Amino acid sequence: MAVAAIKKKSKGGNAGKKKTKYVYFFGGSKSEGNTKMKNLLGGKGSNLAEMSNLGIPVPAGFTITTEACIKFYDKNKKYPQGMMEQVEKSLRKLETVMGKRLGDNSDPLLVSVRSGSRVSMPGMMDTVLNLGLNDISVKSLAKKSGNERFAYDAYRRFCQMFGDVVLGMEHAGFEQILHSKKQQRKIKLDTELNTEDLKEIVEAYKKLIMKKKRFSFPQDPMKQLKMAINAVFSSWDNERAIKYRNLNSIPHDWGTAVNIQAMVFGNLDEDSGTGVAFTRDPGTGEKKFYGEYLMNAQGEDVVAGTRTPLPINKLKDSMPRIYLELVSIYKRLEKHYRDMQDLEFTIQDKKLYILQTRTGKRTAQAAIKIAIDMAGEGLISTEEAILRVKPQQLDQLLHPMIDPKAKLSIIAKGLPASPGAAVGKVVFTAEKAESMAEKGEKVILVRIETSPEDIGGMAAAQGILTAFGGMTSHAAVVGRGMGKCCVVGCSEITVSIKDKNFTVKGEKIKEGDIITLNGNTGDVILGEVGLIKPEVTGSFKILMSWADKVRKLKVRTNADTPHDANVAISFCAEGIGLCRTEHMFFGKDRIPLVRTMILAENTVAREKALSKLLPLQKKDFKGIFKVMKGKPVTIRLLDPPLHEFLPHTDKEKQEMAKMMKVDKKKISDLCQNLHELNPMLGHRGCRLGITYPEIYRMQVKAIIGAACELAKKGHKIIPEIMIPLVGHINELVFTKKHAVEVCESVLKSHKIRMKYLIGTMIEIPRAALTADKIATEAEFFSFGTNDLTQLGFGFSRDDIGKFLPSYIASGILENDPFATIDQDGIGQLIKMGVEKGRSVKPDLKIGICGEHGGDPESVKFCHEIGLDYVSCSPYRVPIARLAAAHAAIMQ
Amino acid sequence: MAVAAIKKKSKGGNAGKKKTKYVYFFGGSKSEGNTKMKNLLGGKGSNLAEMSNLGIPVPAGFTITTEACIKFYDKNKKYPQGMMEQVEKSLRKLETVMGKRLGDNSDPLLVSVRSGSRVSMPGMMDTVLNLGLNDISVKSLAKKSGNERFAYDAYRRFCQMFGDVVLGMEHAGFEQILHSKKQQRKIKLDTELNTEDLKEIVEAYKKLIMKKKRFSFPQDPMKQLKMAINAVFSSWDNERAIKYRNLNSIPHDWGTAVNIQAMVFGNLDEDSGTGVAFTRDPGTGEKKFYGEYLMNAQGEDVVAGTRTPLPINKLKDSMPRIYLELVSIYKRLEKHYRDMQDLEFTIQDKKLYILQTRTGKRTAQAAIKIAIDMAGEGLISTEEAILRVKPQQLDQLLHPMIDPKAKLSIIAKGLPASPGAAVGKVVFTAEKAESMAEKGEKVILVRIETSPEDIGGMAAAQGILTAFGGMTSHAAVVGRGMGKCCVVGCSEITVSIKDKNFTVKGEKIKEGDIITLNGNTGDVILGEVGLIKPEVTGSFKILMSWADKVRKLKVRTNADTPHDANVAISFCAEGIGLCRTEHMFFGKDRIPLVRTMILAENTVAREKALSKLLPLQKKDFKGIFKVMKGKPVTIRLLDPPLHEFLPHTDKEKQEMAKMMKVDKKKISDLCQNLHELNPMLGHRGCRLGITYPEIYRMQVKAIIGAACELAKKGHKIIPEIMIPLVGHINELVFTKKHAVEVCESVLKSHKIRMKYLIGTMIEIPRAALTADKIATEAEFFSFGTNDLTQLGFGFSRDDIGKFLPSYIASGILENDPFATIDQDGIGQLIKMGVEKGRSVKPDLKIGICGEHGGDPESVKFCHEIGLDYVSCSPYRVPIARLAAAHAAIMQ
Repeated sequence: MAVAAIKKKSKGGNAGKKKTKYVYFFGGSKSEGNTKMKNLLGGKGSNLAEMSNLGIPVPAGFTITTEACIKFYDKNKKYPQGMMEQVEKSLRKLETVMGKRLGDNSDPLLVSVRSGSRVSMPGMMDTVLNLGLNDISVKSLAKKSGNERFAYDAYRRFCQMFGDVVLGMEHAGFEQILHSKKQQRKIKLDTELNTEDLKEIVEAYKKLIMKKKRFSFPQDPMKQLKMAINAVFSSWDNERAIKYRNLNSIPHDWGTAVNIQAMVFGNLDEDSGTGVAFTRDPGTGEKKFYGEYLMNAQGEDVVAGTRTPLPINKLKDSMPRIYLELVSIYKRLEKHYRDMQDLEFTIQDKKLYILQTRTGKRTAQAAIKIAIDMAGEGLISTEEAILRVKPQQLDQLLHPMIDPKAKLSIIAKGLPASPGAAVGKVVFTAEKAESMAEKGEKVILVRIETSPEDIGGMAAAQGILTAFGGMTSHAAVVGRGMGKCCVVGCSEITVSIKDKNFTVKGEKIKEGDIITLNGNTGDVILGEVGLIKPEVTGSFKILMSWADKVRKLKVRTNADTPHDANVAISFCAEGIGLCRTEHMFFGKDRIPLVRTMILAENTVAREKALSKLLPLQKKDFKGIFKVMKGKPVTIRLLDPPLHEFLPHTDKEKQEMAKMMKVDKKKISDLCQNLHELNPMLGHRGCRLGITYPEIYRMQVKAIIGAACELAKKGHKIIPEIMIPLVGHINELVFTKKHAVEVCESVLKSHKIRMKYLIGTMIEIPRAALTADKIATEAEFFSFGTNDLTQLGFGFSRDDIGKFLPSYIASGILENDPFATIDQDGIGQLIKMGVEKGRSVKPDLKIGICGEHGGDPESVKFCHEIGLDYVSCSPYRVPIARLAAAHAAIMQ
Repeated sequence: MAVAAIKKKSKGGNAGKKKTKYVYFFGGSKSEGNTKMKNLLGGKGSNLAEMSNLGIPVPAGFTITTEACIKFYDKNKKYPQGMMEQVEKSLRKLETVMGKRLGDNSDPLLVSVRSGSRVSMPGMMDTVLNLGLNDISVKSLAKKSGNERFAYDAYRRFCQMFGDVVLGMEHAGFEQILHSKKQQRKIKLDTELNTEDLKEIVEAYKKLIMKKKRFSFPQDPMKQLKMAINAVFSSWDNERAIKYRNLNSIPHDWGTAVNIQAMVFGNLDEDSGTGVAFTRDPGTGEKKFYGEYLMNAQGEDVVAGTRTPLPINKLKDSMPRIYLELVSIYKRLEKHYRDMQDLEFTIQDKKLYILQTRTGKRTAQAAIKIAIDMAGEGLISTEEAILRVKPQQLDQLLHPMIDPKAKLSIIAKGLPASPGAAVGKVVFTAEKAESMAEKGEKVILVRIETSPEDIGGMAAAQGILTAFGGMTSHAAVVGRGMGKCCVVGCSEITVSIKDKNFTVKGEKIKEGDIITLNGNTGDVILGEVGLIKPEVTGSFKILMSWADKVRKLKVRTNADTPHDANVAISFCAEGIGLCRTEHMFFGKDRIPLVRTMILAENTVAREKALSKLLPLQKKDFKGIFKVMKGKPVTIRLLDPPLHEFLPHTDKEKQEMAKMMKVDKKKISDLCQNLHELNPMLGHRGCRLGITYPEIYRMQVKAIIGAACELAKKGHKIIPEIMIPLVGHINELVFTKKHAVEVCESVLKSHKIRMKYLIGTMIEIPRAALTADKIATEAEFFSFGTNDLTQLGFGFSRDDIGKFLPSYIASGILENDPFATIDQDGIGQLIKMGVEKGRSVKPDLKIGICGEHGGDPESVKFCHEIGLDYVSCSPYRVPIARLAAAHAAIMQ
């Protein structure tokens, strides 16, 4: 890949016209910059200026502009004219504000030199700390602080950073010196080194620099500063920064600013300290000051956990003035930034400095409470409040989560197919799952892959783990539908159903062993881990009601049973976008009838078997219609290939033969004849409805019959009949003709007039390509984005686990296209389908019913291209509602 | 579906302005119409006029225009003003020309009344013959012809047709009367009825008409005529005609003309007769008058085969004047129509009439000879000569054909996957096919479906029959590649490999039974049928050389072996468009190495196994490069999923375990882990090259290594390396980077500079959708239209046999999309790929290498959208060359 350095963007002859300002001062309650000058001063620089303008006591300093950096590259790595003069001038000002001087023999000013570009590029560029120390000023620092070890430790660090960052030496040389000293002293930790050790190390470092670079470690602080600025400018174009910018589409000609800021030390003495604080509780969202601190410590001590920090309210007792100042500051910051803040502060010699403020991370519960509260306080609008909660975060509220404090023994990682967490004993068959669950045991069902026959066991289990399959595999779709934790495509494990175990990295997990699944990360964890139960709060309901007011997209659900429909209604689903009729075929009372139908050798025999299924199907639909109380219900006619309903094992075939009173050979022949190499592309969907019109006719009869019977009791129902897998207009013409015929005849026999719609899935690429033709017959479109993604990419959702992880890891794909719509590719097909469809029927109702309907990014896309609704599994309905609100606000 | 009748297209007030001419006379060597007036006079009418203008003795008559028909509908089924006057006037003229009068008591004129629209709609509209007969004129006819039976038979037929066509009565009533009479007379054939019988039948018919229609059979010939014209006009809008027009996109407002023409009878007496003749030999193309005739007979007697017709040159002896006239006519006709003609003639009472002339059907061999000869005679241009031969016809010249005269016992019908015919003993395994072929036996390999392991057996067999699979299934592709007759997707048969038999409609065909396959029709025939051997003539070579001069598309071949490449070169292939490397992996010396590679647990072990494959692959490529002598060779890197190379049966797994010296469980686990539900959408193509870069690296090393070694010997080679299954630009970036690295390193080690191209298949819909991105990296595109069709339609080429036949039969699909590119849908993706690709790289080389490359319609499409080349199996190269020439000429 070509490495793109900064391109020459010489502005020609305006040099000398007017003196360009390259350096902006901040601190001492007045800054030359502000938060709007992000492009010129970088994120960090503009933010420090802004805080300073607010009267927040940040350590003073100054920022060299990104423009200077750009000119630096234009001029072949020479500073632009006048820049260093401005630096020196600002340095003088800094010395005045801080009351110390760089390289001073009694009270030296130390500074940090940090990069800071327009957008954060964490860890990509360089930083030098403690600049200003030399053989003399180190002694002054020791004296002034009364802490010689502190001073030499600071000097040691500076030497090492200078060698590494500024001189480009290898880290390892310095580490080796440090390591030898510790070995010699028979100690392990850096903190165990005493002052003498540190002095010797500093000398050794300086020698190393001389040896490797033929260069004496500079004692002149101004020389140190110039070299450090040079190094930070140059780090804009180091290899990892370029790679990062390429990956994140950051232009190479933005350049970086350089921030030179006075150092402050929380570990100077007992009147010094450091801490972090949140303006509200990041766990619950409660409006209270929250945080912790340590006296005589640096930030890294708080993070390292070697000492236990104190809660922030203790500071009230020990340093009441500082505490009150901190409170006043946090209130100002939160008001100014209009969001919960996460502060870093340092107290140096009884003086408070704020090092950083940023938007604080928070749990879902806290996010909602803070958003609602802040809107109540008038700090933000309700629209802002809605935007403050990430739709995906809602998963935390609806499913159990793994205790974040728990120690985990992660043994494998699969695809996070359905969120939540689950603990249970491993079982390998659906039967075992059901029988153990009946005894009150919690189980995790582990399969190579699941099939519709496993549904009972999946319902009985706490969670599901499969070795195969992707984000829209059977296990994933069913798991999400049930709101049940599910990890799929865990290709590291080898499952032996027969031996009742699975192996991973040499370890064997047997039936009855306990594992924990994390459906949000895909982690498979050995043993039992504590779970946190979900909790739906009043704030949640308020937020969702606000979201519902602003969103334009309707949100329906994918539900096949009255139970699922009820769950979805409780989450305020506005209809059913996809009711799969095949799940109904797997019931114990149905499957023999279905098999009789498949075994039938002619239409008459098939119709006879179907006539027995009819009343059962009608009952199913009545149940769903009743729950939905007049909300629209889209029912998809039979979709899977018939062989899915046939037995697999010899034993099952024998049983079927016995039940059907035929020779076992007949069953085997049937299985062989119906076998398909690629069932996904096989004899399914409307292709079945065309070869065996009587199947669809029975289903349509059941749908309209159910609607009629309820209509007579006063229910208002508009059934939407959906033909799956249409790729050619003629397929729809054929199946629609049969459906209309049946509908009219049922209505006539009931003497009822009722509106019904006949529409189609758009899930075959060819359907999207010819949507203008298909729309002439279809009364609605529903994008089946799972199949559209499968076919558009040529990816099998069931087999993708074999290579998707490495695709994501190596950056070939940014996202799992089964989780988030691939807008570049599959999105084109969807847009085409919408545009072509509406070119023929401007009012065509269009939705999606693929699993993408519950993914926030995909919901946004659906909003943007003008769909009428999305449909998703019940537990994702709130996510989709919030995401739809976000999309509407952001447009 | 709405029935669209003729729409009102009233031309407003021009009636009365000028008298509109509704009737055009023809015959008597001068006609009012001509061949250019097809829209007004219909095809038949304008043609009769044209012949008449040429001085050809057609029975005279006149044509009522389509305009009259349109007005008839506009005026609510009333004749336009003045039309009947013109009819009467023309009738008088006709009577004059023929020397007979309609309804005359001594020598009555009989006429036919026939429909005739702009385009032929065979059998869709109505015809009335023998009009003019009544109770009196029938007697005159009997007397005049001296053949009472003839006269009453004509009357009987007229009555029946009149009742059926004009009065809209059911056919069955008349049949019943006829049937009763025959029963009563204890005879079987109509011809056994005597004059008395016929008289009685006529009376019974008239009674039936009176009974059913309360209407006396009209004795007035003018009334008969008016009613017949009315009936023919009305038949334009009968149900089957409307359906036919809808299916064939014929506008409903064209209307039909009506032709009223004098009847002539070849069965009048011994001086009458009838015959058919071709202006050249339709079997060989030889330039000689060819045909046969029967004296005292009607056309149907010639066709029925109850009497044996005489060869046309016998007429020279029996009726020399007529013969000479006929010769003079045929020469004139051929010269006028500039193509070989198929004439129907009748001699009535020593007078010759030409009833019809049309372009004669001919064999492929004849088509070529005639085209070349006519171009030589200056009758047509070379471009016309090229267009005279249908590309698909060439199949006849390249493959054995079933003797068209043979009686066939067709037991089943599959998809005609590879043309030709084959006879042999049925075998069910590749091994058996090979062992029997070694003993000199001819065998037909019957499989459920074939896999790469079967290749040896397929090569040994005469033909291949599979129960599953579509036009691009493994069997089909390999069959075509080998130029071997192949029928696939024959879903009627149930194959038991174990029991060594297949059953169809209750019949059991066992191993060793003889069957015949027709690869052009898909017929499976019981027993041995005679075959006609193919013959390539000098004319063929001339025609192809002409075609090559005009075509713009290059024609390459799909070939994986030096042998196939050689065959293709003999058919003038201009390069290899697709060399599949996986076929090389199945050799007996390779498969253990491939399996060792698959079994490898880490990259090092995999590379070790691959290093052993390297020299073998290099040898393969050298062999192909040598044969191709500098012509471009596109080599596709490994495409199928790895599990295709693993054993299937327990026994084979045991053997593999033994050979690999591992536990059988390990092999079983491997098979299970690699198993895929939808292999077509699985871990294959570049997905393998990304997860295991070392596989592609070995292949690239072998390709460039082979090229280098040959380059040193003076060969000029530009290898084209093709990455399969790219759907995302990043997949190409990744694999190309590895390939370039290997190429450069091999070239460096050989100290050679050589041009090589790295391109990609466009076979994933997403690749076509994002072709502008992919083209930034690809150096060529090759459309894999098989996979593009599979994915665009969501059809598995291996499973489509289950429903495609019913799709074609019911008109849901017009063609098998795997045989002919679906231009409406998949074609959009291809066009998009070309346009987007060339928007980035205007000179991008683009071809197709799917099986469509040998289909004439698809080749035409490829030409139109500006591809550079098509690539097809060797035996289809001539077809593609001719099709490309057609496309270039027609554009």
